[in-house]
Amino acid sequence: VQLYFSPLACSLATRIALVEAGATAELTSVDLKAKRTADGADFLAINRMGQVPVLRTDRGDLLTENTAILQYVAEAFPDAQLAPRDAWGRAQLQQWLGFIGTELHKGIFAGLLDPRAPDAAKAHTRDKIALRFGVLEAHLTGREFLLDRFTVADAYLVTVLTWTIAVGPTLSDWPAVEAYHRRLLARPSVAAAIAIERPLYAEEQARRART
Amino acid sequence: VQLYFSPLACSLATRIALVEAGATAELTSVDLKAKRTADGADFLAINRMGQVPVLRTDRGDLLTENTAILQYVAEAFPDAQLAPRDAWGRAQLQQWLGFIGTELHKGIFAGLLDPRAPDAAKAHTRDKIALRFGVLEAHLTGREFLLDRFTVADAYLVTVLTWTIAVGPTLSDWPAVEAYHRRLLARPSVAAAIAIERPLYAEEQARRART
Repeated sequence: VQLYFSPLACSLATRIALVEAGATAELTSVDLKAKRTADGADFLAINRMGQVPVLRTDRGDLLTENTAILQYVAEAFPDAQLAPRDAWGRAQLQQWLGFIGTELHKGIFAGLLDPRAPDAAKAHTRDKIALRFGVLEAHLTGREFLLDRFTVADAYLVTVLTWTIAVGPTLSDWPAVEAYHRRLLARPSVAAAIAIERPLYAEEQARRART
Repeated sequence: VQLYFSPLACSLATRIALVEAGATAELTSVDLKAKRTADGADFLAINRMGQVPVLRTDRGDLLTENTAILQYVAEAFPDAQLAPRDAWGRAQLQQWLGFIGTELHKGIFAGLLDPRAPDAAKAHTRDKIALRFGVLEAHLTGREFLLDRFTVADAYLVTVLTWTIAVGPTLSDWPAVEAYHRRLLARPSVAAAIAIERPLYAEEQARRART
């Protein structure tokens, strides 16, 4: 498979899943500002939304949307056990993918990370943090992962929580979430994926500062 | 199953799916302002997020998040063929559920329908309409449904498009989307579900106006 990614964007979740699966994948970085891929292609022709991740399957088909791509990777590499096999387990996985995608990623972080969002919009977004992190705190108290074992939902959640370093909130208000984040950052697949993307992120920031 | 719903909220999508499946379900309405169910229970004890839909399975387990509930219903009633069975078809279903949930529902309509959102936030949200509806228009041109046949993704999309009556945009700018919306509204399951919920919505509005 081929994964279009941008350093430390939500495509990091798929990179973590690919590392977990031991998959050989082609990773192509995308400049989300210029909407160009590292090999010079027009990214809007690949994804009209201009968003990462985009996955190109071995058959050449394109798939967008993080929650769909993560489940595709889990299904493509079943030995890695990145998703439950039973119906109720899958429903719970989809529940958490939905919560992270809509309530955390779109509901909170997309707004806080958006450079064009007006201050009033950001303040309104911050009002939503307490309820949503309270739900996470209640669920993660006494748990190691969102489900019984590591799944693609954890790959997504640790990615989203990493953005708190840039835009808050401070996780110390939610000790179970903070401990979960620290634990997941120490997981080899997560540490390896971030170790690759952090310098790429720094390079991108430096390149943008120069232009 | 039991479905907690609020009239014309995104739980309408699950009602449509249940009608398509010919399922016998208990539908319990929720006052989302008072956070009380029609039978007087504290809804926050059922879903801490205070959101519909919530599904209670026949085993008594609770499931939240629209995209998870829709896929659960599709799986629970396989004869209705509300979701593809093959892996790539399921991936595409999940892609569209993700797009509708994050880009349309949360990215546009949650902001426009939020009575507490400041005007500057709503204006910023309106700036996102053209790209997202352009993606829909391109995909729906020449198609009857999002995938090859009616699926739960269509149940979700027709629900979301119905909110345009309240907060815009005017669909005439996207003729394929407008024709899709009109076609889906005429589908018996959709028409039946809306015929039940529209008077309930009017009653709720009238009750709120009195208090």
